Amino acid sequence: MSDKTSSWERLGKLITAESSEEVINYIDTLSPSETARAISRLPEEVRRHLFTLLSPEDAAEVIEDIPEAQAADLVEDMPSEQAAAIMEELDSDHLADVLGEMDEDSSQAILAQMDEDEAQEARKFLKYAPDCAGGLMISEFLSYTSDKAIQDILDDMQANREEYSGYHVQYFYVVDGKGKLGGILQMHDLLFPARKTTLAQLMIRAPLSVSDKASLSELEEFFEEHHFFGVPVVDDEQRLVGVVLPGAVEEAVNKRKTKNFLNLSGIIGGEEFRTMPLLLRSGRRLSWLSVNIVLNIMAASVIALYQDTLAAVITLAVFLPMVSDMSGCSGNQAVAVSMRELSLGLVRPGELLWVLAKEAKVGIINGLILGLLLGSIAYLWKGNPWLGLVVGGALAANTLVSVTLGGMLPLMLKRLKLDPALVSSPLLTTVTDMCGFFFVLSFAAALLPKLGGI
Amino acid sequence: MSDKTSSWERLGKLITAESSEEVINYIDTLSPSETARAISRLPEEVRRHLFTLLSPEDAAEVIEDIPEAQAADLVEDMPSEQAAAIMEELDSDHLADVLGEMDEDSSQAILAQMDEDEAQEARKFLKYAPDCAGGLMISEFLSYTSDKAIQDILDDMQANREEYSGYHVQYFYVVDGKGKLGGILQMHDLLFPARKTTLAQLMIRAPLSVSDKASLSELEEFFEEHHFFGVPVVDDEQRLVGVVLPGAVEEAVNKRKTKNFLNLSGIIGGEEFRTMPLLLRSGRRLSWLSVNIVLNIMAASVIALYQDTLAAVITLAVFLPMVSDMSGCSGNQAVAVSMRELSLGLVRPGELLWVLAKEAKVGIINGLILGLLLGSIAYLWKGNPWLGLVVGGALAANTLVSVTLGGMLPLMLKRLKLDPALVSSPLLTTVTDMCGFFFVLSFAAALLPKLGGI
Repeated sequence: MSDKTSSWERLGKLITAESSEEVINYIDTLSPSETARAISRLPEEVRRHLFTLLSPEDAAEVIEDIPEAQAADLVEDMPSEQAAAIMEELDSDHLADVLGEMDEDSSQAILAQMDEDEAQEARKFLKYAPDCAGGLMISEFLSYTSDKAIQDILDDMQANREEYSGYHVQYFYVVDGKGKLGGILQMHDLLFPARKTTLAQLMIRAPLSVSDKASLSELEEFFEEHHFFGVPVVDDEQRLVGVVLPGAVEEAVNKRKTKNFLNLSGIIGGEEFRTMPLLLRSGRRLSWLSVNIVLNIMAASVIALYQDTLAAVITLAVFLPMVSDMSGCSGNQAVAVSMRELSLGLVRPGELLWVLAKEAKVGIINGLILGLLLGSIAYLWKGNPWLGLVVGGALAANTLVSVTLGGMLPLMLKRLKLDPALVSSPLLTTVTDMCGFFFVLSFAAALLPKLGGI
Repeated sequence: MSDKTSSWERLGKLITAESSEEVINYIDTLSPSETARAISRLPEEVRRHLFTLLSPEDAAEVIEDIPEAQAADLVEDMPSEQAAAIMEELDSDHLADVLGEMDEDSSQAILAQMDEDEAQEARKFLKYAPDCAGGLMISEFLSYTSDKAIQDILDDMQANREEYSGYHVQYFYVVDGKGKLGGILQMHDLLFPARKTTLAQLMIRAPLSVSDKASLSELEEFFEEHHFFGVPVVDDEQRLVGVVLPGAVEEAVNKRKTKNFLNLSGIIGGEEFRTMPLLLRSGRRLSWLSVNIVLNIMAASVIALYQDTLAAVITLAVFLPMVSDMSGCSGNQAVAVSMRELSLGLVRPGELLWVLAKEAKVGIINGLILGLLLGSIAYLWKGNPWLGLVVGGALAANTLVSVTLGGMLPLMLKRLKLDPALVSSPLLTTVTDMCGFFFVLSFAAALLPKLGGI
């Protein structure tokens, strides 16, 4: 354990000792997440020194181990020539991802310093949204024109063996003179026919493909329906521009889920790592908390309106947060089920009434049971059945409200093109707080003579 | 839109009309998620009738379109012979996943009715945890003994062309007579050498592999480090038992994230779909809510202890839920950052003090700013600076507590082998509620003479 926790101290010493060979040897012994951790913990000037010690190839390997947002920060801090030399060593998809995390100025400055061909390639990727087919595709694939014979392919593969070894060569793509996708072949289709057979004779014509603008959910559906090892991507003129692998789609879905989780927890405006500057971290968190304070004031103002009732029956103060918290939890369960069903396509944003009917039943049952439970507790505590009625009735009513609202909210937000992961929970909490306070205090106001003095 | 929403009505009509051909033709026009939706909305007896109309092959295709938990429910309801006939048509990995979602009795009954070989294969998968290497691997791969020549491989591929077309044939694996993994070859290694060359002469020896018991995070690390298109899985005797593809690892990570998201939102004990029986849905949700009611009572009991203070300064009742809610949100931000850093390996469960130091700074800054904000609002509202001090001071103190606790909690739970996604949030909320109520009311009690009458 103790030598693990100090991996960045060892790395730091090697860097300060300027022994670039030992640095790279040591990094090789670390797993990618250990590398990321060690580098993120280095003091800033030591980290900067590290990248001057490494060759661009070695630096690129280190960059590939680090989460993209962090990698982008590192590269942005470098002189753009150094950054460009490193970025040229990254593969096209990763390069675009890291550039995409930077601000426009930095990424343009780096592209300007890069080799013209590589920069052009990177710009091609950058113009796509990161999770459409164009942003997810790789450009490392094999394509040939249909007049080529098997022997030509074999010669080409022999000649470029080194380069192609990292390619995904489950399929060969066949294009016409203008680069339009015309057919597809599997590697083992080459094994058996005579070597002068042309691809035109062998290929499967009009293969399935996706548009470079296809969305992530279209790609998900595609790979759900077709168990292929990759899908060719074509532009508006049907020209083959890349290949999307199913793993890249899953990875993008993963990233979206992470973003949803962070948004749901109030981490907005980008991922946070504890090695980021303090003021950035605290400022980003505050930006969300300051919205939250407004929502909280709205909810609490209901209590202010009923201050007299509360003063008369001070015991209610104990139950106010309980009723609102409990219904908030019930509502969040319904939110989660709706978000899950939406993402699986089991419910559509328009089906509000179907969800309402399904959730109202759960809301009534769970509301009655929870209300009975909390009402009995209140009654047993103070010996006043009316208190039990107020508290239990309020919880039952508020559970029904929050469960039905929680179920419908993600559908409504989706229709309004708002992000349910970002907006559902704070909106729901505010409404259930307000309603919870209102139910408890207005029921109590109505029954005030029966509650006197507890 | 309107013809989309009634896809299950159309399907229902076709089923009732007993026209099995039209049923399968119609299902073919639907995307997998539309199929899943249509089938889940059918009345139970119609759904049962559907599967008697379909051939086992067609039924298996439908089953593959449906989320596993739902598919398991459907298959469990069938007579076990019918279920077995359908299950035999699923691929090995999917079969094990669906069986794994059933209770032991049902899956054993189905396995007993299945073809002996297929059942044996399925049992092999079932004995593994679903997200270790053994549970994620596929058994559709090509392996040969090292004495085979290229020509033998080509003959075998030619003879079994049909069967192998769905295989992942990026690699060939080379095993000894006992099935031990000895080498690996890529498809294009077969293209160039003379056809009588043996695999022993060509193969890369001692290839990287993973144990069948390797955990999901070990697999994640493996594919992070090595950009392979698959990794061979070996048992304790180094025998090759399967291949894990990177897509399967990403998919399992996805599933784990979904489970975390649902747990975090209080959906515990399995996924919920609104087409499940009402009492199952409401019961599962209640099981979590009833734990929550206990936590809420604990928190609210602090208010009961300070009832006199509250009665004397009734305005505080407005601020109690605000202070506890706001700090709850601050704490949840810290929880999310810790969970993210843990999953990326950027922080280790033992590094409590590092997290404490990082979070304390954010807690102090954000606590002071939010405290100043809420304190000023309280002062401006009632014109009493002491009220501002009580409310603002309580929020500042409670923010510090909840941010530091929120940051450390996932690390502590991980060390105790508890699931942070399940336990962090309710535990944090309870503690921040208690502390929030305590800070507001104890500060007020100390300053009671200055607060009189508001």
